[in-house]
Amino acid sequence: MKHKILITLFLFVSAGLLPINAEMKYVEASRLTLVGKAMSTPENVYHRVDTAKYNDMPIPVKDLFTYSAGLAVCFKTNSATVAVRWTTKGKEVMGNMTPIAHRGLDLYMCDDGAWIPVGVGTPRAGEVRHESTLAQCLAPGEHKFLLYLPLFDEIVSLEVGVEDDAFIEAESSPFRHTILMYGSSILHGACASRAGWAYPARMSRNTGINFVNFGLSGCGKMEATVADMLKDVEADAFVLDCMPNPSPEEIRERTQYLVNTIREHHPNAPIIMIETYMYESGYSNRQVQEFCRNQGKAFIEQYELLREQGVEDLYLIRDNHAIGVDHEGSSDGTHPNDLGFDRMVKQYQPQILEILKKYGIE
Amino acid sequence: MKHKILITLFLFVSAGLLPINAEMKYVEASRLTLVGKAMSTPENVYHRVDTAKYNDMPIPVKDLFTYSAGLAVCFKTNSATVAVRWTTKGKEVMGNMTPIAHRGLDLYMCDDGAWIPVGVGTPRAGEVRHESTLAQCLAPGEHKFLLYLPLFDEIVSLEVGVEDDAFIEAESSPFRHTILMYGSSILHGACASRAGWAYPARMSRNTGINFVNFGLSGCGKMEATVADMLKDVEADAFVLDCMPNPSPEEIRERTQYLVNTIREHHPNAPIIMIETYMYESGYSNRQVQEFCRNQGKAFIEQYELLREQGVEDLYLIRDNHAIGVDHEGSSDGTHPNDLGFDRMVKQYQPQILEILKKYGIE
Repeated sequence: MKHKILITLFLFVSAGLLPINAEMKYVEASRLTLVGKAMSTPENVYHRVDTAKYNDMPIPVKDLFTYSAGLAVCFKTNSATVAVRWTTKGKEVMGNMTPIAHRGLDLYMCDDGAWIPVGVGTPRAGEVRHESTLAQCLAPGEHKFLLYLPLFDEIVSLEVGVEDDAFIEAESSPFRHTILMYGSSILHGACASRAGWAYPARMSRNTGINFVNFGLSGCGKMEATVADMLKDVEADAFVLDCMPNPSPEEIRERTQYLVNTIREHHPNAPIIMIETYMYESGYSNRQVQEFCRNQGKAFIEQYELLREQGVEDLYLIRDNHAIGVDHEGSSDGTHPNDLGFDRMVKQYQPQILEILKKYGIE
Repeated sequence: MKHKILITLFLFVSAGLLPINAEMKYVEASRLTLVGKAMSTPENVYHRVDTAKYNDMPIPVKDLFTYSAGLAVCFKTNSATVAVRWTTKGKEVMGNMTPIAHRGLDLYMCDDGAWIPVGVGTPRAGEVRHESTLAQCLAPGEHKFLLYLPLFDEIVSLEVGVEDDAFIEAESSPFRHTILMYGSSILHGACASRAGWAYPARMSRNTGINFVNFGLSGCGKMEATVADMLKDVEADAFVLDCMPNPSPEEIRERTQYLVNTIREHHPNAPIIMIETYMYESGYSNRQVQEFCRNQGKAFIEQYELLREQGVEDLYLIRDNHAIGVDHEGSSDGTHPNDLGFDRMVKQYQPQILEILKKYGIE
């Protein structure tokens, strides 16, 4: 009730109180270039998967695929100020994520060929409509931007604002190829401090290769209905970083169908399986340690079985303490913090690039 | 209104629904050892400063000193499970912090001489009363624990729970000496992913030296009334990491009184001034860049002036890109993320230790 009253008030007075910068003009982000998509989503351009078409997937999976994780808007402008107005569905905030990562925005600017962070969009606590100035006092001239969308909420509307006398235009995607990454909350972005820190996003900016984020917090369980959706993605390679979510039994039951289904529809695409590190809490919690070990054992068994069965172009990246062994790489005992993600990228990225290079993906 | 109803309901049913583990018993944390305190606080043991005694300090400063940043409870138990029940004031959640860091808890266990993280206490969204199981399935035997308290909220009550047939006892502080650190939000802990990641806490665990956190988010402005409080702290050394908060003019007006007041009451204690890195947003925002540079210029000028005036045992740690130059060390353009904090600790800690060693503080 409280939220409804506040939202109504907000809408009522918005014409008078907003925008925060009277001299700004706003354009619909859907008029700009959307980066990180792997398929069209008629219901909402900011969804990751067409959940109406793939209606047989489990309900939590469909819900998570409406989150905008990994999507970014690419544009160029000569404005010295960049602002945003956006509305989210208002999914429940989790204790281990910042509101900025959860439902906020993350702006990068191309500076001398590299993408540097220039500002974050901070959501209003307890609200679904947000407004934020992300960059100010930029150097004169035209700049390219990448605006990362929320990791753990659904975008309902999004407008990008620039100074009234500036131009804003769609800019072509800076990323080439399509590497579909399917996986758990770690891939999804938990617990990155902001959207651009999810590791597929970091690898894309580092390499110029388009790593698409199909991370599903807690739900990367390799169900057959999800495999049947993944096979339709027009990707050049597939990365499976889902080991933490299925039980050891589910890993044994489901891995072969997932890999074989992708292989059948993509005869030449490399498929890369990533063994996940043991959770930090496994160093003290003996049950967690045992469970992680059994997941890893089952995952590697399945890889070896598939290779024995003759599946080609299948790779396994073994864990080599991806988040480090100094006990500083996790935020909550399960997920990496930004330090852990930095270490993961340093470990995974060269191994993935080496495999992709064999297939001319570089 | 909504919150009040929920809280009332919660209290009403708590006898029936809580505790989550029926076999647990709880003790008041105030019966255990409180680590990280620099003075007694009669009003609330979980405050950092006696704000009634130092009533002349600015209201926001007094409010922030009621937050439990840097405080930890030290105990030992042979329980395989550790749980907590706690109540906070319910200060507004900020967009750049996780709820766990903001009002949650962070448990470390001593493992072969090193402190390793074992679990976090996740607060209930929109609530002030919280309950969480932090550690489970621990190896048999007695273990020592450090439980870090919220960075950005005030603790109203705190109980530690262990299994009904286990013992729990106060454990003496593992940290020696008292190094008083006064400063900004960065020192306070923004934007660490959890309380134990604030950099004074990390340095304490690394070194066994007690680095006391007097960080004041946005309010480390060196007011004379704050200097008059700091002089009363029985510390072996003082670290001033407050440069980001005062304006260049305020730095010129206030630094001498702060340093001279501390020096007068602590004739032999080293005083270490830390020059802050330029904010990440300063790489794109020319106004921020200029402001940071002017703050640094004023801060160094004041250090040199004090040295010329004959103030002894005064040190300056120059910035050497403390959070790195790859644009990955900040969460929000202002504050470090956990990667930035890791780099800061690697840069500051050896320099601070080298100075302290000259005074037999090691």
